[in-house]
Amino acid sequence: MTSEFTVQGRPISELADEFGTPMYLYDGDVLRDVYGSLRARLTPELDIFYSAKANPNVSVCAVLRSLGAGLEVSSMAELITARRAGAAVQDIIFLGPGKSVAELRACAEAGVHAIVCESLEELELVNGLGLPRPVDVMLRVNPSFTAKGARLSMGGKPRQFGIDQEVLLRSRSFLRSLPGVRVIGVHGYMGTRILDAAAIVDNTRGILNAAEELSAELGFELSTVDVGGGIGVPYFDNEKDIDLDQLAVGVNAAVTDFLARNPGRRVITELGRYLVGWCGTYVVRARYVKESMGEWFVVADGGTNHHMAAVGIGSFVKRNFPVRSLTRYTDPELRPYNVTGPLCTPNDVVAKQVALPEVRPGDLLGVERSGAYGPSASPGLFLSHGYPAEVLVLDGTAHLVRLRDTVDDLLNKQLLIAL
Amino acid sequence: MTSEFTVQGRPISELADEFGTPMYLYDGDVLRDVYGSLRARLTPELDIFYSAKANPNVSVCAVLRSLGAGLEVSSMAELITARRAGAAVQDIIFLGPGKSVAELRACAEAGVHAIVCESLEELELVNGLGLPRPVDVMLRVNPSFTAKGARLSMGGKPRQFGIDQEVLLRSRSFLRSLPGVRVIGVHGYMGTRILDAAAIVDNTRGILNAAEELSAELGFELSTVDVGGGIGVPYFDNEKDIDLDQLAVGVNAAVTDFLARNPGRRVITELGRYLVGWCGTYVVRARYVKESMGEWFVVADGGTNHHMAAVGIGSFVKRNFPVRSLTRYTDPELRPYNVTGPLCTPNDVVAKQVALPEVRPGDLLGVERSGAYGPSASPGLFLSHGYPAEVLVLDGTAHLVRLRDTVDDLLNKQLLIAL
Repeated sequence: MTSEFTVQGRPISELADEFGTPMYLYDGDVLRDVYGSLRARLTPELDIFYSAKANPNVSVCAVLRSLGAGLEVSSMAELITARRAGAAVQDIIFLGPGKSVAELRACAEAGVHAIVCESLEELELVNGLGLPRPVDVMLRVNPSFTAKGARLSMGGKPRQFGIDQEVLLRSRSFLRSLPGVRVIGVHGYMGTRILDAAAIVDNTRGILNAAEELSAELGFELSTVDVGGGIGVPYFDNEKDIDLDQLAVGVNAAVTDFLARNPGRRVITELGRYLVGWCGTYVVRARYVKESMGEWFVVADGGTNHHMAAVGIGSFVKRNFPVRSLTRYTDPELRPYNVTGPLCTPNDVVAKQVALPEVRPGDLLGVERSGAYGPSASPGLFLSHGYPAEVLVLDGTAHLVRLRDTVDDLLNKQLLIAL
Repeated sequence: MTSEFTVQGRPISELADEFGTPMYLYDGDVLRDVYGSLRARLTPELDIFYSAKANPNVSVCAVLRSLGAGLEVSSMAELITARRAGAAVQDIIFLGPGKSVAELRACAEAGVHAIVCESLEELELVNGLGLPRPVDVMLRVNPSFTAKGARLSMGGKPRQFGIDQEVLLRSRSFLRSLPGVRVIGVHGYMGTRILDAAAIVDNTRGILNAAEELSAELGFELSTVDVGGGIGVPYFDNEKDIDLDQLAVGVNAAVTDFLARNPGRRVITELGRYLVGWCGTYVVRARYVKESMGEWFVVADGGTNHHMAAVGIGSFVKRNFPVRSLTRYTDPELRPYNVTGPLCTPNDVVAKQVALPEVRPGDLLGVERSGAYGPSASPGLFLSHGYPAEVLVLDGTAHLVRLRDTVDDLLNKQLLIAL
């Protein structure tokens, strides 16, 4: 945002009036800058794929696609989103531990770059699709090594994801028995919300090494390696930005070394949160400001129902996302506020004891760094308020990219029994 | 359910084939039994209102309405649901800490029994609606006493809910200054998931006493008291059913004592989870069964995205809802399984190390006691799988009461910018 309360020169208050609140506001300049800054540092030999699950909005996907990102998708709707966003099939991969046969068939028929298979059973399902040509798949490996520095580990532990490296190494004859499947590569994803560059570099080298080992042991031609991603966005006071230069130097060296040994291969890193997290602000309007037993509460028009990550349901220690007033400049008289949503649960606390300039009813507040895992990762039907509007500001123009749910949207899918 | 794998004689496997999985399956007999069993124990002088937020499906609301329940609602969509479900306006109350002016106006114009006001500001907003007649409101009090035995406290602490009892006691002249508002009563809600009957009885007496005090001090005619509710459903191994007889004896005595002192008043208890929790089963189908590093995983076709409560996101200790096979009878050879959904997060674990008979791909599993805070309290758009079907079996007939989201449903609200 270029000034305190504007996005690309558009006053946020005007956008809030035009599109209503609660609203997710995406700054296209930030979206481009984050991508461009990373792209410029990474070797051009490393493809960046965007994990659509982080923000599946078709226009957000389209912007990243227009910048050169491939799309990593995990459901039928995400696959269709990727196509609508302009992704070529060779720049789409599909992963997820629980794919349906319909999803597998849609991927195979579309001819995506690869289905990332996460179990031996899934390989058998793909083999059984009965397509005229073998289907290109990558093997998702659950490596024998563990990720350091990840907030959530997807690999190196007992997990629903991928196939244990030890199991894969024994699967040469099994893979040979699947004429409908062509293994083209290996995928590894170690964990998420990593803010330590060295951990990303270690993971990258570890997956590349595992891919070479698996290719040699299993006897398939290695065309593609997806080294995962997992770069985090610092949300809380105790978190710091990842060192992007250190990351790039280490990852580039790992990729260059790998390609020197294995020329002509495609190497992919997949990123979700990092690419879209920074660009988004969840904008709410204060409806009520009140004191209760010595604490001040701002009751806003949105909360858990749209931004569960900021609320952090179930955490024992509430940690605050960056929250600021979008109406009043910071002054020396900051007060500690609990910012809540409109729900009837005491867990609906967007920020606890956060220092803000005086908040009055009607003020706008923004929860920042909220472009990833926002509405789509939140219980938008809770208390039947529905999902919020999403607005993307691109080249100075604000575009509505997701319509706010209406009452009819919420009720039309329900059927009333005659009693 | 009348036998192991049927609901009212309908095999669950047939329902799963007919309506698909994942599916929420509601047993109308259980829904009626739970209500009837409570209703029979409570004095007829105590009205039962159903908190629609626990399960806002219009047909679920209609069944409870047909049994005599009033409706407690918290959003425009819930208000309309209550009307569609057949609730008379005098049997509807509206509460919530962050009501919009549009919601307040809709309630006032419809003439609901009361708007439960949660702040002095809200009382001013209601006063300012400019209706021809004063609007009936209840005051939600945040009492000076604390609830015992509640898993989440809504009162007796600094909270966004209600108005501190001490503040209310000083508000006589403020209330007099609001000619557009008629205070008809008091509402208190102390906490949720209470499994200790004595705590419910204490809360009931406490709210009734607070209501009498507030009426006397503030000089309004007390017509209605809502004593809250908060009866829990035992989900975990260490939890036991509430003692309903003990609860009824204590609550009935409290209400009878109150009515002896205050004849002709309306007393309401509002219940959500307790009324609908028992009747619901979340039915998923196993897609993959695999071993990873010594643990067995069932990857099912639904998880966090539809049943966040069972997943318990963010809890440090994973506790399992009751989960059972709906395909294979329990045998002596139980195995410990991790039951996961199809999402790409290691948190998507419906049950951890739960003992089940052997699970094979295609088997049905049921997460029981799941009629409350299911799909509407879950991030149904996560990974763009969409919300599941909901089926209510009533008098032996299975009714689809919520259509499964289609891919078009998920994408039609998004807008693609031309780039």
